[in-house]
Amino acid sequence: MKQIEVQQKVLKRHEDIAQRLRSRFDKAGLLTINIMGSPGAGKTALLETTAGKLAAAYRTLVLEGDLQTDYDAQRVRAVGLNALQINTNQACHLDALMVEQALADNKINLDDLELLVIENVGNLVCPAGFPLGEHLRVVLCSVPEGFDKPAKYPRMFYKADCVLLNKIDLLDVLDFDKDAFWKFVKQVAPKAARFELSCKTGQGSDDWLDWINQHKGNTSQTQD
Amino acid sequence: MKQIEVQQKVLKRHEDIAQRLRSRFDKAGLLTINIMGSPGAGKTALLETTAGKLAAAYRTLVLEGDLQTDYDAQRVRAVGLNALQINTNQACHLDALMVEQALADNKINLDDLELLVIENVGNLVCPAGFPLGEHLRVVLCSVPEGFDKPAKYPRMFYKADCVLLNKIDLLDVLDFDKDAFWKFVKQVAPKAARFELSCKTGQGSDDWLDWINQHKGNTSQTQD
Repeated sequence: MKQIEVQQKVLKRHEDIAQRLRSRFDKAGLLTINIMGSPGAGKTALLETTAGKLAAAYRTLVLEGDLQTDYDAQRVRAVGLNALQINTNQACHLDALMVEQALADNKINLDDLELLVIENVGNLVCPAGFPLGEHLRVVLCSVPEGFDKPAKYPRMFYKADCVLLNKIDLLDVLDFDKDAFWKFVKQVAPKAARFELSCKTGQGSDDWLDWINQHKGNTSQTQD
Repeated sequence: MKQIEVQQKVLKRHEDIAQRLRSRFDKAGLLTINIMGSPGAGKTALLETTAGKLAAAYRTLVLEGDLQTDYDAQRVRAVGLNALQINTNQACHLDALMVEQALADNKINLDDLELLVIENVGNLVCPAGFPLGEHLRVVLCSVPEGFDKPAKYPRMFYKADCVLLNKIDLLDVLDFDKDAFWKFVKQVAPKAARFELSCKTGQGSDDWLDWINQHKGNTSQTQD
């Protein structure tokens, strides 16, 4: 019982900080997106592929979550987006305190931003349990992971606002039952927006950008 | 402090149970392998590809860990291996208590077995912290995940006895810096055995079986 009580207190504390962050994001008129998915699903590649249009449309900051290294922040900066790296060391997810601390340590003025994209630690389980004050939760899957992931890891999907299927350029090479994948997604997250894309070829990435624009109340800024 | 104290007590309890399991495995002369890796790395496919030779060589039981569904146990049974499914519900890893309970609930007599393969929950972080009484820790990576995972998730690798790189049939299709991948592995886990294979084509799977045989003190049983 003691263990459960302590866990509940810790979770409550994280939720309180997430609420505080959300209030700050709202006050600054900032849209915040939490991108989650397995290691190697293509979360950083998604940002690389869309960096030009995102940077042109919005004053954007990316928070990169990883246990170790700043490779992802480097990759995202290389394509013109501002990025901060958060190293969680042993922790399997970002939490609201880490986000709050990174914003404070780097003296980020939220009023200077329009879009905050948080790339969570690659993990299809734990990040689902730790809200970061985000407005939108995105789950990025990829073809090589197999079609059964929404059924096997439902907790990650059931609060998703959007599910993306990446690496569709590999559909011809791999055995992937796309209909079964989307059927599972609809069962677990019936209201989530659903898009297919390839960060390698760029195919489908404009649909994802349009979805962001819709949530910014702006459907024209990233149109060609 | 209270949170850390409780966490330490919980971890100590898990370690005690893992020690108890290890003693039982040793007494039964059973080799136990804990296979860990990201969702979709190919852990179940590895068992499918090698099922025939494993079943021919050893009285084998597979424990399949997943949050939900018994799909993996079904897949492994379909190729002739005995398998039990453990559903962790919300938990991001197997723990020793789950393993002990599954063996007890299913009235498994360890003396009837020669090889126990545990497929952990797909997660490149959390399973590393929870010993299951295993003799050998195997980390399975795959080409589509990208070459940087050993650097970004070092905790998973540094106690590995073996690192496998799966899906090498995709090396021609994907940008994967294989030299950098193995360089990272050698930095984090210098003593780990290293193999490349494709569970799709079967290429390299005999090297992996030979490694198991060596640890069983038997280098002839799966030879053609």
